[in-house]
Amino acid sequence: MSQPIYTIADYLFDRVAEAGATEIFGVPGDYNLAFLDNIIASNKLRWVGNTNELNAGYAADGYARERRFSAMVTTFGVGELSAINATAGSYAEYVPVLHIVGAPNTQLRDGKRRLHHSLGDGVFNHFIKMVEPVSVARAEITAENAASEIDRVIRMVLKKQRPGYLLLSPDVAKLPIYRPTTQLKDSEEDITSQEALADFKKELSCYIEGKATTLIADLMVHRLGLQSQLKALIADTQIPYATLSWGKTLIDEHSDRWAGVYVGEPSQPTVKDAIENAECLIKLGVNYTDTTTSGFTQKIDTSKVVDIHQERATVADKTFAPIAMKDALRALHEVLTSGIEVVAKPLIAPVDVHQQQGGDDEPLLQKDLWHIVADCLDGNNLVFAEQGTAYFGMSEVRLPEGVTFYGQPLWGSIGYTLPASLGAGIASPNKRSVLLIGDGSALLTIQDLAVMIREQLNPVILLINNAGYTVERAIHGEEELYNDIPVCDWQVMPQAFGANQHNCLTLKAATPAELKSALSQADKAKDKMVFIEVITGMMDIPPLLQDVAASLK
Amino acid sequence: MSQPIYTIADYLFDRVAEAGATEIFGVPGDYNLAFLDNIIASNKLRWVGNTNELNAGYAADGYARERRFSAMVTTFGVGELSAINATAGSYAEYVPVLHIVGAPNTQLRDGKRRLHHSLGDGVFNHFIKMVEPVSVARAEITAENAASEIDRVIRMVLKKQRPGYLLLSPDVAKLPIYRPTTQLKDSEEDITSQEALADFKKELSCYIEGKATTLIADLMVHRLGLQSQLKALIADTQIPYATLSWGKTLIDEHSDRWAGVYVGEPSQPTVKDAIENAECLIKLGVNYTDTTTSGFTQKIDTSKVVDIHQERATVADKTFAPIAMKDALRALHEVLTSGIEVVAKPLIAPVDVHQQQGGDDEPLLQKDLWHIVADCLDGNNLVFAEQGTAYFGMSEVRLPEGVTFYGQPLWGSIGYTLPASLGAGIASPNKRSVLLIGDGSALLTIQDLAVMIREQLNPVILLINNAGYTVERAIHGEEELYNDIPVCDWQVMPQAFGANQHNCLTLKAATPAELKSALSQADKAKDKMVFIEVITGMMDIPPLLQDVAASLK
Repeated sequence: MSQPIYTIADYLFDRVAEAGATEIFGVPGDYNLAFLDNIIASNKLRWVGNTNELNAGYAADGYARERRFSAMVTTFGVGELSAINATAGSYAEYVPVLHIVGAPNTQLRDGKRRLHHSLGDGVFNHFIKMVEPVSVARAEITAENAASEIDRVIRMVLKKQRPGYLLLSPDVAKLPIYRPTTQLKDSEEDITSQEALADFKKELSCYIEGKATTLIADLMVHRLGLQSQLKALIADTQIPYATLSWGKTLIDEHSDRWAGVYVGEPSQPTVKDAIENAECLIKLGVNYTDTTTSGFTQKIDTSKVVDIHQERATVADKTFAPIAMKDALRALHEVLTSGIEVVAKPLIAPVDVHQQQGGDDEPLLQKDLWHIVADCLDGNNLVFAEQGTAYFGMSEVRLPEGVTFYGQPLWGSIGYTLPASLGAGIASPNKRSVLLIGDGSALLTIQDLAVMIREQLNPVILLINNAGYTVERAIHGEEELYNDIPVCDWQVMPQAFGANQHNCLTLKAATPAELKSALSQADKAKDKMVFIEVITGMMDIPPLLQDVAASLK
Repeated sequence: MSQPIYTIADYLFDRVAEAGATEIFGVPGDYNLAFLDNIIASNKLRWVGNTNELNAGYAADGYARERRFSAMVTTFGVGELSAINATAGSYAEYVPVLHIVGAPNTQLRDGKRRLHHSLGDGVFNHFIKMVEPVSVARAEITAENAASEIDRVIRMVLKKQRPGYLLLSPDVAKLPIYRPTTQLKDSEEDITSQEALADFKKELSCYIEGKATTLIADLMVHRLGLQSQLKALIADTQIPYATLSWGKTLIDEHSDRWAGVYVGEPSQPTVKDAIENAECLIKLGVNYTDTTTSGFTQKIDTSKVVDIHQERATVADKTFAPIAMKDALRALHEVLTSGIEVVAKPLIAPVDVHQQQGGDDEPLLQKDLWHIVADCLDGNNLVFAEQGTAYFGMSEVRLPEGVTFYGQPLWGSIGYTLPASLGAGIASPNKRSVLLIGDGSALLTIQDLAVMIREQLNPVILLINNAGYTVERAIHGEEELYNDIPVCDWQVMPQAFGANQHNCLTLKAATPAELKSALSQADKAKDKMVFIEVITGMMDIPPLLQDVAASLK
């Protein structure tokens, strides 16, 4: 048998693998079927089919948060547009997902006829235009541009940590091409000006000396992969630190220097003092959103801030650019350990240890729920908290070192975390996903449970059954029917999507004692999905959500 | 108690009601909650919440096919983009859906901050731009433009029978305004040139006289609401007729003048002869797509065609415009009944009566399945056939007079028919939806089963369980894993979404006898959902799909 010919599709998927993916998500369609064969034939990639394209997009997003790259394949028009909300979320929250879309064959499009999955107007570039605001690079792959455009788009995705888009038709996909001879990451340029960096460092040394300093970190540290660098900095210094909820779990939350999660005005006194009364506040990759600051109620005097961001650093009101964050962070580390006097004020009080409010056999309360969950986590968990009571409930709860906390506080697309936790579970098979999601949110994307089961993943799913959109009730329309959802039978839901006693444990908890028991069973059943329906009151919300909701009214 | 103030939201929803909706679909979000209250307070509209926005968009599409107008409400960014694939489908297939999107309050947007559901760049017009290619009119409602822009967008939706888009923030929604003083439909202009019409009529009379004539109708007759006019024409003449599958059930399929459904090259001999060998072929609102013509294999000599379309009519190669279709159709009716000699050739053979191929207790075959279903329909049914084996299986099957057949052969977004049949069922409560859908397709949108149950609808659902994407297998990758779907337990699926013995009958059929029995039980259980899992072979496809699939390879 002769060697199969190496094609443009092979080139593309080799680059996808080189960028860091070992799986690829998506939904088949007749315009992509032919090149899905190249994935099947690849020994570097595995196809993970989702139940619909939005779910595929969310799964790819969750995977990319763990791997710093992911790819998905959908079909023209119907498939890609179903996924576009997921792509927008990846764009808003800096998640590098490559979206590969199967297009009708070139000569079919040239005929300008009414092809299925088109708008019927003979125009085939509507959708690549629609994706423009939510992607950093786009290309239609042709015989003439394949290597350069594939490389350009993937490099931009990696560099900007945001989505890219490639359109590929089966006739182009099967054309012969030679293998890549360059490395994808060869061209990683260094944007830092050494002069800017030197000036920044000098300014920083003068500025910080003798000032009571606190550090606050946020999502961009995670997105740029600088967690280890940050941890090393923390280890080598004595300053107190905090994060915003978007950056939660970036830094050890069990040190006595951990001030807590800063949420603006309603922050706990300890973290509030550490942040707002610092003489110098070092901000690392901070992006304020309304939801993480309780409606922009942060009280931070910019004249006291050292702000380190993707391509610039500021000291009080002076800006130094271009400096890549990793370089500014290294400079900061050097300055803080250079022997100058850095004042590390102790926290005004230790972070509260939660005392359970409700009795063990009384109805479970939101103010206890998240602490009970946190107590059962270990450093191996990926925690996905849906943008409802779960996200706000978990925001201020201390999590074990090693846990990664994921949410979507800016884009806030409900239903996101279910497929995202699936994607992350596939990306990091040695970790265990813990999904915290309400009934209203879960209903949007519930069918990807079937993919979790088929993939033999072992998530712990806490389905908070509180009879509807409680986060909306907190904002408006407490008792209005538009905040109700249809009554579902969550106890049979996993079974409907393929669960059985061998691959899934389905439980229910309405009291603290039942929840603890369920979580303990989950801990023992590490080889299967554990689906726990958790009953809470329709209007019971975590304390922080009360404040955030008030700010959003 | 003082009279509640009349607001811009009230004005909008009064116009929505005036345009023909009595229900409104959607999903709540904090940017639309405040004006959902106006829907709750309205005595003209009822809120029907869906399980996600794509499903809401499909439901609104199904509703609009029955009512010639519908509306849905979603929230900014996350909600609207989740629905955009449905909107694109409505655009491609001429379905008039108004999409109302809740936006952040004006002064919040003016602050250009990182608001949730935005891309975080302080720019808030990305999404109204993204929807441009798939809508005929768009506006952001402001204090200054509310009445004129609401009216303009809704009028365009009605006129063009395609989607429109309105962005509304809660602060604008609650501003006072006076009630409309004009009628929405006041401004319906008549585009027809009487001179063009007269010339067309004269040309038509000369041309058609003495020629053996056949009529073929397609979707635009339905979309422009001209079914009665067409039926009157058929009743007053003797000519044979046919439709494309997109226009199926426009005309009585039990007359001996019904030639069948024309599908291009693989058409049955009777309809093939009637269409391709006509001396004059009258085309009414025909839009050829690859899927309805088996890859554009229609053999129609345009020099023999009288073509009547939205705004023009042609006789052989002469074009007359502008003429509205309703006027051209009236002119056609007058000419054909004017006493000139119109030749009505009898069909070469009667349309085949199907003889069941498989034994009653043998495994059910696709070549029998659709005929058995058709035999159990009555004139009260709305039949939704998913763009898989169901659409192609039903295309050529004779349906009872009164049935309306719906599919989505151009846009072809799988999963569409489940929520669409729900929407149509709500639009026409005196009819009964029959949903024909495969397991692969159903999985995409399955959660809207919960809405069907909550709304106490009584659809008959035939879930064709053939272990995956059989329509894709027919095209490529027959045995490839990307055409598999996760194994689900369809027998418990309805229960998971709220079904019980009072509101649902769940059945299974693997043989013709079992299917007939299930359909007979469905007929007796007219007050509940009947969910029938129908087992067919993984590679068994209806005969037409074989030809269509070959043309799409």
